[in-house]
Amino acid sequence: MLYAIVMAGGSGTRFWPASRAGLPKQLLALAGEQTLLQDTVARLDGLVPPDRTMIVTAARLLDAVGEQVPGLPASALVGEPCKRDTTPCIGLAALLVLRHDPDATMAVMPSDHVIRPTADFQRAIRQAAAMVESSPGRLVTFGVRPTYPAESFGYIEQGEPLVVAAGDAPAHRVVRFKEKPPASVAAEYLAAGTFLWNAGIFIWKAATIVAALDERQPETMAHLRRIAAAWDTPDRDRVFAEEFAAIKGISIDYAVLEHAPDVAVIEAPFGWDDLGGWSAAARQRKADEAGNTAVGRHLGIESQGTIVHTDDDHLVVTLGLRDILVVHTPDATLVADRAHEEGVRKVVAELEKRGWTDYL
Amino acid sequence: MLYAIVMAGGSGTRFWPASRAGLPKQLLALAGEQTLLQDTVARLDGLVPPDRTMIVTAARLLDAVGEQVPGLPASALVGEPCKRDTTPCIGLAALLVLRHDPDATMAVMPSDHVIRPTADFQRAIRQAAAMVESSPGRLVTFGVRPTYPAESFGYIEQGEPLVVAAGDAPAHRVVRFKEKPPASVAAEYLAAGTFLWNAGIFIWKAATIVAALDERQPETMAHLRRIAAAWDTPDRDRVFAEEFAAIKGISIDYAVLEHAPDVAVIEAPFGWDDLGGWSAAARQRKADEAGNTAVGRHLGIESQGTIVHTDDDHLVVTLGLRDILVVHTPDATLVADRAHEEGVRKVVAELEKRGWTDYL
Repeated sequence: MLYAIVMAGGSGTRFWPASRAGLPKQLLALAGEQTLLQDTVARLDGLVPPDRTMIVTAARLLDAVGEQVPGLPASALVGEPCKRDTTPCIGLAALLVLRHDPDATMAVMPSDHVIRPTADFQRAIRQAAAMVESSPGRLVTFGVRPTYPAESFGYIEQGEPLVVAAGDAPAHRVVRFKEKPPASVAAEYLAAGTFLWNAGIFIWKAATIVAALDERQPETMAHLRRIAAAWDTPDRDRVFAEEFAAIKGISIDYAVLEHAPDVAVIEAPFGWDDLGGWSAAARQRKADEAGNTAVGRHLGIESQGTIVHTDDDHLVVTLGLRDILVVHTPDATLVADRAHEEGVRKVVAELEKRGWTDYL
Repeated sequence: MLYAIVMAGGSGTRFWPASRAGLPKQLLALAGEQTLLQDTVARLDGLVPPDRTMIVTAARLLDAVGEQVPGLPASALVGEPCKRDTTPCIGLAALLVLRHDPDATMAVMPSDHVIRPTADFQRAIRQAAAMVESSPGRLVTFGVRPTYPAESFGYIEQGEPLVVAAGDAPAHRVVRFKEKPPASVAAEYLAAGTFLWNAGIFIWKAATIVAALDERQPETMAHLRRIAAAWDTPDRDRVFAEEFAAIKGISIDYAVLEHAPDVAVIEAPFGWDDLGGWSAAARQRKADEAGNTAVGRHLGIESQGTIVHTDDDHLVVTLGLRDILVVHTPDATLVADRAHEEGVRKVVAELEKRGWTDYL
């Protein structure tokens, strides 16, 4: 049986002021009519039923997440009491799944990426699940063929090819994982043709990842087992809070994937974008003939390359602008040169420094 | 006795979205803490008492004007039922003043200019009033020494100098009035050194301007006399509406000043700015070291030459911007390259064309 674990605890700052502490990127409609989380859940329709879907988010986001996915039972939502990276999230999900299904296969995925079309995504997940069925000890990852020398992604180096069925996407053994590289190294990776962007989507037997974690992260697993043991008791919240806080945060890549003996990577046959910022989000929308994109009510005069994001009724007028980003929210507006898009993080840092927390 | 007639019926579009049909430029705090109208009334303090001050505005602005000048009696406010340029406004004010004071001198002034310092303004008005007392048939205007070849102002050509008292500002006979000139002509005016910008401030005996209007604009004066006759009767509103609508709108410059035999111009000894747009308004404020000015809560990062205007609590962040204007209001935000500032009129025209009247 296939289970889906949607990781929705992210708290990025690159979409400020639309994204806030209480409304992170995955809860925003950045690439369409629905939010990225809603898109992620909709993408599972027909692949994994709601009663085998779990969303792991931050406790403080539980209400907001629940409102966005009314089709899921409340028991499908797990609210982490504090932020501890992906390993504790995945380890706990695996333990919870194993309680009822010792042979469970789990697909772990982020909630804030754009993946299209859904049919190709589902076919690829089924391919990965089949690989895991035939090699239960294997950890399967997804890699995206690079189109430019990105410095902001991790990379997966492809090794020997694996045999795949006709019509399936190419799959390889993984030689190694590489952290975000400097520009020159990223260019080498691109030229080599054997490096893929790590899409952060993983498929494996729950029992396999638990075994790997037991070996590499025994302390973390001890904490997680105490949480799982208390899950169906009145002590759940207290134990979850106490034990989870005591865990050291670490990514699953560092904790397991870099050390595991049998890791495969499927070259993603679907379109993928991690939406690293406003310009990436704008690429998901139809631009007018002058390259302007807008969400909400926008009037552009003598403007080109503008990105406008506003609430429905608040009008944004751009006049004589070139490559400027305007994001309007009820209490804060950002106007930025698109070449300075990375600086949005600086804005958030400066607001924190000034104690203007109402805007965070 | 000196009376002040403040003309506050303007409905400019250059300060959209801060200025609206119901909240024109003169009712905005564009150059300080008070609105331009409030500054104008405050500038009369000690020069003309409230019971000799009259504000002529549009009927639909009466409430807004009244709220801004609580120190004036309701009878001091005149609301024109429709827009008819300066001649009907000045003619009616003169007739109303003459009802109680046949020898009245009236100082007519716009309500949307910046004039500083007040002491110099008051001294200049007193000088003009004294000129009118000694030559009751004279019409006195104020001109501002040009500092650049402006195309957006009317000009007054100075003729022979008039004798003035020690310490008074220079005064000359007026040779002629010139409408807004093209750039080349404006440059000639600037080079000639005998042309001043028409500040739109006039001082004369009420009886003198009425006599001049009777000669040049007899039909208009017939309408205005019927309004004045009904002023203290229950018929005022009806007669005002009917008669005023029947008047042809024309400026006092065209109607009288260009034809009058004895017109003088005092070279304004005070600082003057007609605030032709956002950049002009910004010049009235203290800029930071990068040339940014802001009204309201602004955080600028790597930005220079920005102009920000926002309501108190709405934060505007500018990132990597150069010479960009951001005006935030509750229902509309304008972001413009300052080099396109003149285009704000186009924005308003486009909104009218689209029928987006809520934003006008």
